[in-house]
Amino acid sequence: MVLPGPPGELRPMWDDAVTDDLVRAALAGAAELRQATVRLWGPPEAELAEVLRAHEDGPSADGFADLEVTTCLRDGELEVVTRYAPTAQPAYDALLAALHAHFGAQVFSDDDRTVDEVVADLLRGRGATVATAESCTAGLLAGRLADRAGSSAYLQGGFVTYANEVKTSQLGVEEALLQRVGAVSEEVAVAMARGARERLGTTYGISVTGVAGPDGGTAEKPVGLVHVCVSGPDGDEPRELRLGGSRAHVRARTVVSCLHLLRELLTTAGPV
Amino acid sequence: MVLPGPPGELRPMWDDAVTDDLVRAALAGAAELRQATVRLWGPPEAELAEVLRAHEDGPSADGFADLEVTTCLRDGELEVVTRYAPTAQPAYDALLAALHAHFGAQVFSDDDRTVDEVVADLLRGRGATVATAESCTAGLLAGRLADRAGSSAYLQGGFVTYANEVKTSQLGVEEALLQRVGAVSEEVAVAMARGARERLGTTYGISVTGVAGPDGGTAEKPVGLVHVCVSGPDGDEPRELRLGGSRAHVRARTVVSCLHLLRELLTTAGPV
Repeated sequence: MVLPGPPGELRPMWDDAVTDDLVRAALAGAAELRQATVRLWGPPEAELAEVLRAHEDGPSADGFADLEVTTCLRDGELEVVTRYAPTAQPAYDALLAALHAHFGAQVFSDDDRTVDEVVADLLRGRGATVATAESCTAGLLAGRLADRAGSSAYLQGGFVTYANEVKTSQLGVEEALLQRVGAVSEEVAVAMARGARERLGTTYGISVTGVAGPDGGTAEKPVGLVHVCVSGPDGDEPRELRLGGSRAHVRARTVVSCLHLLRELLTTAGPV
Repeated sequence: MVLPGPPGELRPMWDDAVTDDLVRAALAGAAELRQATVRLWGPPEAELAEVLRAHEDGPSADGFADLEVTTCLRDGELEVVTRYAPTAQPAYDALLAALHAHFGAQVFSDDDRTVDEVVADLLRGRGATVATAESCTAGLLAGRLADRAGSSAYLQGGFVTYANEVKTSQLGVEEALLQRVGAVSEEVAVAMARGARERLGTTYGISVTGVAGPDGGTAEKPVGLVHVCVSGPDGDEPRELRLGGSRAHVRARTVVSCLHLLRELLTTAGPV
């Protein structure tokens, strides 16, 4: 059974859950209830819905009706939460296999870990350290990297370079470059990430420079255009984001995008 | 009428509001409804409740029953939201006068502005600029200072100095000082704020160094101990905070405390 997911919040799921026969049985002690969460980064919600429908109608759907599957879009990530009785474990295994088969590396967690936990585990596993260089997010990325206790194992520190002069004085971004291509550009994002990495001597430097709005947009560089970059032992990995929504939404989504870029590089990187 | 305030959220107020006669009348177009918000920093909730009761029973309480007063504690700030019909304006003016008379400078806003807006207006009015130096908040203060559009008028940038070596290399905090008094100390908070101010050439430098927890606390420096400092043209203003709650709560409350310290100094400071 696939329930339509609430937008951005899991809480309403509980209203469904407590009126569900399966959950009622579990609450009454009649059955152990398992819950598993799969998280994806990249695919649109519609694609996930289609994959779930195809699986339901497909040859490996035995027992699918015994799974209670809820999907939820949050901060650009897709969450698939499944509740099931132990007898439905083979059906859940088949669903998980279908998700992995279709989405591949877009499945970034199938063991309930958040992207923050995945990144933290990857950094710790490699003994890698990070430094940040932030313009429009102005510290929110570094702040998020420090959300978890023990983050000093990988977060060394960072720079908030809101004014262009600070990008030059603290990160070594050349003034001529800023004048030629503007602060919101791939070239400046690369220079910021390199500057942070070099100055703090870390494995990785992560930078953000963008137009968070609501003012400051132009035809060429509209509100929501953000350049980010991770620089590391394997070179520079810049990305251009085109984000919609409010100033707060642009900044929040940028932070999540940086965590996923770092995660992807850490997953595929060679030995440090 | 004084309604008990919901803890930490205004939303439940609306449930009360829409069933209220006064509001019903306003929604029906029968009456213009005014709403005013007074914000306080410092007094405990119980003191505010006592002041409201004393006013209600006092000589200037004429028409107090026509005011719908709700109080709310959020992020350590107290909010007093009053809804009233235009005919009750004198009663509201008397209430506002009573709040100002009792709480003085603890009333930081009586025109609906948040502390973020008050600080932004003060900084812009003085043409003052700020730089941050953050350890346990790790960028959340700078990120908050950049929440508002146009914040580049006063926020130049800042430093996330999570590791001690970064406090030394980027802010000039002496290694010997760190070893002697430890990173979480008034002396290091002062050195960090000075370092940020000097390196970015700003009017003010604001620093944070603390034990956000849940680990890392000692008998002498327990979880929740945070030293902050604002350095400016009139010298250094360090403060010691003793905060309770989770890691997230300690960090969030620290950010709010820094905004209020900056606001207080900007309110009383001489000309820049």
